[in-house]
Amino acid sequence: MRSSVFFYSTYTLCVCLGLLCVLFVSCWSSHWRGGFAWDYSALQFNWHPVLMVSGLVVVYGNAAVVYRIPFTWKQNKLTWKLVHAGLMLLGLLLSVVGLCAVFDYHTGANIPNLYSLHSWVGICTVAVFALQWILGLAGFLFPCSPLWFGSSLKPVHVWLGKTILILSLISCISGINEKLLYTLNGSSEEPYSSLPVEAKFANSLGIVLVAFGLVVFGILSKNKWQRPETDGERVQLLHTDDNN
Amino acid sequence: MRSSVFFYSTYTLCVCLGLLCVLFVSCWSSHWRGGFAWDYSALQFNWHPVLMVSGLVVVYGNAAVVYRIPFTWKQNKLTWKLVHAGLMLLGLLLSVVGLCAVFDYHTGANIPNLYSLHSWVGICTVAVFALQWILGLAGFLFPCSPLWFGSSLKPVHVWLGKTILILSLISCISGINEKLLYTLNGSSEEPYSSLPVEAKFANSLGIVLVAFGLVVFGILSKNKWQRPETDGERVQLLHTDDNN
Repeated sequence: MRSSVFFYSTYTLCVCLGLLCVLFVSCWSSHWRGGFAWDYSALQFNWHPVLMVSGLVVVYGNAAVVYRIPFTWKQNKLTWKLVHAGLMLLGLLLSVVGLCAVFDYHTGANIPNLYSLHSWVGICTVAVFALQWILGLAGFLFPCSPLWFGSSLKPVHVWLGKTILILSLISCISGINEKLLYTLNGSSEEPYSSLPVEAKFANSLGIVLVAFGLVVFGILSKNKWQRPETDGERVQLLHTDDNN
Repeated sequence: MRSSVFFYSTYTLCVCLGLLCVLFVSCWSSHWRGGFAWDYSALQFNWHPVLMVSGLVVVYGNAAVVYRIPFTWKQNKLTWKLVHAGLMLLGLLLSVVGLCAVFDYHTGANIPNLYSLHSWVGICTVAVFALQWILGLAGFLFPCSPLWFGSSLKPVHVWLGKTILILSLISCISGINEKLLYTLNGSSEEPYSSLPVEAKFANSLGIVLVAFGLVVFGILSKNKWQRPETDGERVQLLHTDDNN
């Protein structure tokens, strides 16, 4: 009971921080960066931070912890597998549209793609995320998938899941920092080093984003919050443990 | 035996990637950025990436995995606690000297401190690292420390250890990206977007750094590679599990 109260408090914190991230990044893009469009302009770029923060971190993080919610434990696991896979697909699609936004903006402004370290890490993150989703679908949802494949994949899937969260945080923080360096030092009368209100706001977005990521990581790391296995799953897990 | 061979292969990869990180960051600072000095100039800044990459990521990562090396398991645990704490202290000291280097450079060039998101995350990382070291000393090395304190601290120490690794990677990648944006776009004839050799080299440093961090994270995540507990430790762990 105490553990359940502690879980729901942490989970509420996780959801609130996630919503705060989406709110902050939307405010930043709309209030300080001029809003949104889909016309190869800087306004199309503004979709990039919103979609990457929302898809790659917030939706991803929430999708990663769905199995930990105690009220789902008595329900059919397949339903929650579908919720997990569905949310992950939503996160992946938002990320891909977020990448299209920045590629289109670069095309419109004649800026080369994929030169910064932020973009190298970012593109790897989305590629690994896509690979993880396809492997997850093949290993855990395809009815004709062999048992040994799912059980061998599970530890890799769990480790890669946390890895993607780390890569997403690195990509988003380096991206927010890069955007502030370009926009505030490029044309603004108040450079980044004078910490104008926009810089304080976007830096705070970065801190809230890291806090969200660490709360998700904390939920995933706590063994007691894992969904209890059924007898069938335990047999699979024993097989997995032999390889772990 | 097979598990041990797999561990030592992964550990060798970890050590090689760590050495490569130190080599890459030293080459970048000495070959492209003009070398080192301690005179409030840009040459003093060059210590910053070298010391942060070496202390906060490479030494830290190696210190985090010492308990996992099988040949240490039959040796006295106190010896390896001292090695762990000593390496962590070395990592912390290198990081603090690395911070002094950038603060002195900012003073010399009349640049404000702690304005970028990179610096906000970076300073938090070093502060959490220092807190973790002090708590670790109090909980696991002070002979007069009560048993309940050490056993309550252990899960927090393990989680915070991985958290610091994540924060360190975020800090270093955003810092390398920031440095390239400032130096290549600021005065170089070849901007960052034209991907000159320096940019390719420093971006590769970032990728090797992330690879090192993920290998360390992989070693820490594999339950089979944990140091087996003695009977006394198992009693403590049972107590810890009640709170986990």
